Amino acid sequence: MANYTIGVDMGGTNLRVAAVEEQGHLLEKITLGTQVSLGRDRVIHDMCDSIQQLAQKYTSSSKLLGIGIGVPGIIDMETGMMREAANLPGWANFPVRSEIEQRLHTHVILENDAKVATLGEKWLGAGRNVDDMAMLTLGTGVGGGMVLRGKIWYGMNGMAGEFGHWTVEPEGHPCGCGNRGCLEQYASASAVVRMAREAIASGATTVLTQAASAGQEFSARAIYNLAVQGDEEAQRIFRRVGRALGIVLASLVNGLNLPMYVIGGGAASAWEAFAPSIFEELRERSVVYAATAPTISLEGGHGASAQVEPSQSGRKTIITRALLGSDAGLFGAARLPMIVD
Amino acid sequence: MANYTIGVDMGGTNLRVAAVEEQGHLLEKITLGTQVSLGRDRVIHDMCDSIQQLAQKYTSSSKLLGIGIGVPGIIDMETGMMREAANLPGWANFPVRSEIEQRLHTHVILENDAKVATLGEKWLGAGRNVDDMAMLTLGTGVGGGMVLRGKIWYGMNGMAGEFGHWTVEPEGHPCGCGNRGCLEQYASASAVVRMAREAIASGATTVLTQAASAGQEFSARAIYNLAVQGDEEAQRIFRRVGRALGIVLASLVNGLNLPMYVIGGGAASAWEAFAPSIFEELRERSVVYAATAPTISLEGGHGASAQVEPSQSGRKTIITRALLGSDAGLFGAARLPMIVD
Repeated sequence: MANYTIGVDMGGTNLRVAAVEEQGHLLEKITLGTQVSLGRDRVIHDMCDSIQQLAQKYTSSSKLLGIGIGVPGIIDMETGMMREAANLPGWANFPVRSEIEQRLHTHVILENDAKVATLGEKWLGAGRNVDDMAMLTLGTGVGGGMVLRGKIWYGMNGMAGEFGHWTVEPEGHPCGCGNRGCLEQYASASAVVRMAREAIASGATTVLTQAASAGQEFSARAIYNLAVQGDEEAQRIFRRVGRALGIVLASLVNGLNLPMYVIGGGAASAWEAFAPSIFEELRERSVVYAATAPTISLEGGHGASAQVEPSQSGRKTIITRALLGSDAGLFGAARLPMIVD
Repeated sequence: MANYTIGVDMGGTNLRVAAVEEQGHLLEKITLGTQVSLGRDRVIHDMCDSIQQLAQKYTSSSKLLGIGIGVPGIIDMETGMMREAANLPGWANFPVRSEIEQRLHTHVILENDAKVATLGEKWLGAGRNVDDMAMLTLGTGVGGGMVLRGKIWYGMNGMAGEFGHWTVEPEGHPCGCGNRGCLEQYASASAVVRMAREAIASGATTVLTQAASAGQEFSARAIYNLAVQGDEEAQRIFRRVGRALGIVLASLVNGLNLPMYVIGGGAASAWEAFAPSIFEELRERSVVYAATAPTISLEGGHGASAQVEPSQSGRKTIITRALLGSDAGLFGAARLPMIVD
């Protein structure tokens, strides 16, 4: 008879809706393909349908505390509009929250998917023992979120956490946001595929070319598999991923001096291929990391020597993988109605 | 008979010590040249001497609440050691706080000079009406500080705010911190002089060469004066300053979504020469800025058009000059003992 909430994680590929108890226990999860190509109305219809299905099933035995929804875009908290939704045609500048509320006849909390994933990792994952953390989510794009003094940091318009659009190469690859050289252009799954195509076009590799022309799905995962199998060009691509992440993490560490930074999202499963480059960049580029780095074995055995003496305070900077995998966003969305202040 | 504190702002050039009342009224200010070349002990001696002088004078009529000291280096809050002090030979890894406390026989609060300047601007300057702000201080180096939810953001070791060591050019000019292409290498007074020398060496300018060989002090201020007089190469140098600041500010805006970012420090007096480039970069590089920018007239008439519709929420992102000038650090240091929690 515990209270429960309903969380929605709307990704570019899957739409997932779950009923979750206050203590973090999953009651039921519904997974649907996100019919992005069928248009915004269809996706919102499917979402509301699943929410109502779960609400009808569990409200007889438990109390529904609220509904939290994570969506891939920048949300204006005040208006509930999506300000940018690069991977969702027709969603930008649409009043998503009020549309959903009209259909459900109830209040919902709409939030950026990466902030929601950060909240999930804070609640039940890598960050459950820290009060302050930042997270980068590597997927089709690169999202971000922060928890400061135990609470999600929204910023004044709810737009904080856009680390995916931090510049890592001032004259780099153009980004959909209008900038050049954003982290997202080097560390997302789409960027991995683009860099592989660039390598093929430049004639740098035969293995990638064979893989791309073999008819199989040419994905970031396929390129990761080639890297694991020892293909040098595929390994070089993931070193570029790690370098871009390392540049941004070095700035985060220098700027915020948090105890924990978490890398999540689907493409984080290539951790082994890009993590060594992250730690190399961090040690070179962040004087604060050099002073607060854990012993090298905790980093996985990589990285140059520190430039300053390690801090005597004992508080270390931890860079780590997300623990909840693809469920971080779902649990984080379910958490939203539990922490309204 | 108001309570008062003593604040110390220790810069590379001047050592300033002031007695300040709780309401922000200055009782007395002592300015000494910082005898850095005479060694650490001499500077600490001069500092303690001035503190004692003021304490003796005002303690008969008012209550001394505490002593706050801003120093140019990274401070380990727990130990009171300076972790890095690029412009102060002999200060790194020295227990500055306990040395001062032994001489004064009382507790002092030691803090990074840029964080202290941020606190000053929050208390009595540009940020007095906001709860959240970040500040960049442009001097010999580039420092930074943040106020979040009304309080200085220290980070877990007190090392937060090192925006001067954010990478803006991954393969750029080497920095004393061990990184390459730090903001400090493009936006500090030292960087302005270096870029001018580079321009002279490349034969790009005759006006700069004449100025440099005229026997007068070849300073960032002299180069700024040339820019104001219309020298194209000097103007180009300040556009590089603005570009580097714009890249970092774009990331700050995308990451934190604060209402205010303040540019202070001595080199901020060249605002007119570098600010237009800041706003150009911001509009191109920050999707959050584009959505929250004030009308262009408030920026000073520069910048390309926004890429997304301005936010309807009415909350705007303000980028502005510091108001307290070189006194920001002094008032901020005096503020430190008033806000101990």
